[in-house]
Amino acid sequence: MASAPASGEDSLIARYFKPIATDPGAFNLNDDAAILKALGEDVVVTTDAIVEGVHFLAGDPPDTVARKALRVNLSDLAAKGATPAGFVLTLVLRSADDSWLKPFAAALAEDAKSFGCPLLGGDTVSTSGPLTVSITCFGRVPVNKMVHRSGARPGDRVVVTGTIGDATLGLDILRGGAAAAALANDDAARQALIARYRVPQPRNALARAVREHASAAMDVSDGLAGDLTKLCAASGVSAAIHAPSIPLAKPVSSLLSRGIVSLETLVSGGDDYEILCTIPEASVAAFSQAARKAGVAVTAIGAIIAGNAIPSFLDAQGRELALKRRSWSHF
Amino acid sequence: MASAPASGEDSLIARYFKPIATDPGAFNLNDDAAILKALGEDVVVTTDAIVEGVHFLAGDPPDTVARKALRVNLSDLAAKGATPAGFVLTLVLRSADDSWLKPFAAALAEDAKSFGCPLLGGDTVSTSGPLTVSITCFGRVPVNKMVHRSGARPGDRVVVTGTIGDATLGLDILRGGAAAAALANDDAARQALIARYRVPQPRNALARAVREHASAAMDVSDGLAGDLTKLCAASGVSAAIHAPSIPLAKPVSSLLSRGIVSLETLVSGGDDYEILCTIPEASVAAFSQAARKAGVAVTAIGAIIAGNAIPSFLDAQGRELALKRRSWSHF
Repeated sequence: MASAPASGEDSLIARYFKPIATDPGAFNLNDDAAILKALGEDVVVTTDAIVEGVHFLAGDPPDTVARKALRVNLSDLAAKGATPAGFVLTLVLRSADDSWLKPFAAALAEDAKSFGCPLLGGDTVSTSGPLTVSITCFGRVPVNKMVHRSGARPGDRVVVTGTIGDATLGLDILRGGAAAAALANDDAARQALIARYRVPQPRNALARAVREHASAAMDVSDGLAGDLTKLCAASGVSAAIHAPSIPLAKPVSSLLSRGIVSLETLVSGGDDYEILCTIPEASVAAFSQAARKAGVAVTAIGAIIAGNAIPSFLDAQGRELALKRRSWSHF
Repeated sequence: MASAPASGEDSLIARYFKPIATDPGAFNLNDDAAILKALGEDVVVTTDAIVEGVHFLAGDPPDTVARKALRVNLSDLAAKGATPAGFVLTLVLRSADDSWLKPFAAALAEDAKSFGCPLLGGDTVSTSGPLTVSITCFGRVPVNKMVHRSGARPGDRVVVTGTIGDATLGLDILRGGAAAAALANDDAARQALIARYRVPQPRNALARAVREHASAAMDVSDGLAGDLTKLCAASGVSAAIHAPSIPLAKPVSSLLSRGIVSLETLVSGGDDYEILCTIPEASVAAFSQAARKAGVAVTAIGAIIAGNAIPSFLDAQGRELALKRRSWSHF
């Protein structure tokens, strides 16, 4: 006559994740599947996993791991011009450790709420290896209005949000690299860069402006240079980037001018999670105004040109910078 | 003037997975996200990951790993009455090993085609730990027609597809357990049970019949007894199961009658991937006919009863069997 005994996995889900499953289509996580309503729009699907020791460090706080896992996916939706609709979560865990799961779930709940992206379902499985968080995230766009990588045309302005290279220096600091030594006396700068590595700031506030004005867009996750190369390849064009225009945070700019980091490091490092997009000349003013209203800094860094050359990065004198490395790759 | 150099990850995706991305919404895997068209129906979302050493063994052939990863998800869609629409794949790999990836991708392509479930996108990431394959799978059902766990009512017939317990014995054989010794001279039986563990046979052919006739349904993945307990809890009912009616494959039935395996092992072992559903009395004939037409064996094993007791399993004499363990749990 007792009620059903909860297995470890079931009670883990109930305890930590039901409160995040606020969408009616999640059925309170009591079913095998969820329903995602398209509401007459196109459903945009993206998936990104983060692995301990690769995308975050073993010692990173659980709340930052949760936020990063969701935000790297939200960043893709933003770049595609989509409004977040929900996500499913796969947690690959060594153990069900309450002291880790509690802050993880609490931070995930906060982000799910603030970005309007409720949990729809998930799976928790055990592993002997590194903790892995895999999220598939859904958004909606008006029918056929998703912004592609492939729409850039010669003459379009190349625009990027926020600042570039902060996250790769944050990782360098966590690993005790050159940036750590150079900023030994500037705790605030070190912490700010580390925060940019651990908790990306996806530009979902800009999604509508991107959808309405950009000819092509993607998020910068594997390095600005490499990701621009991908966008140009998909569009069948090239680009000329004015390197001094690339937006840099103050401490990053200072490290660059002191010769402690190279531009190559900044534009080939991963984890920026900014939006890279191309804006036709006629839409630049309207896009800038929409970005101001959205409260997202945008900077024009160059122009799309014809041809299939790898995009060039030019210095203040117009000389091409040699980039040996353009992006991060897993294999 | 050279064209863009492909990074390891990009060329891996292009080589192996583009041929599976046959849906126009996959954009040939050249974008950051995919579009899933709802086509006026509800989108059903399910996600399941399989981990080396947990859901499959380190030595399992790559083609069976691919099929299992997709099929455990297809099985959820079938139980919900949904028609497959596509999937996204996250591969967590130690290395990009061609001799593993090639048969993996080929088998995945075959299953994607035969189940009508194209690849929409994915992510490949590196790990130092066990290989993990995480899939989020999409289906479509007419609006509000997804079959839930929660609709079972007293008097409904409890029905299960196929046979129960094969997969858990297949795993036992692979581990050299009691079933391996007992079947030492029956290679065909051993191989058949191992195949049931490695490559589930999801009952997608039955999805429409489930949608039209079942009051509740779920797939049996963590053990018949535990999964029935979950279904009953979600529906606020109990059930009485006639254990001798539980469908068993011939070698399994023989091992049970020889006392080499217990009924508890069979109904608490995982990986069956059969459909468990409840059919109102008035629909039993129509459901049976639809199942025959679909070519899927279905067996009535008991009835839903009122109350909130854990479902009971009764022997031929009507005595309740004591089950200490009812399902597999990760934690």
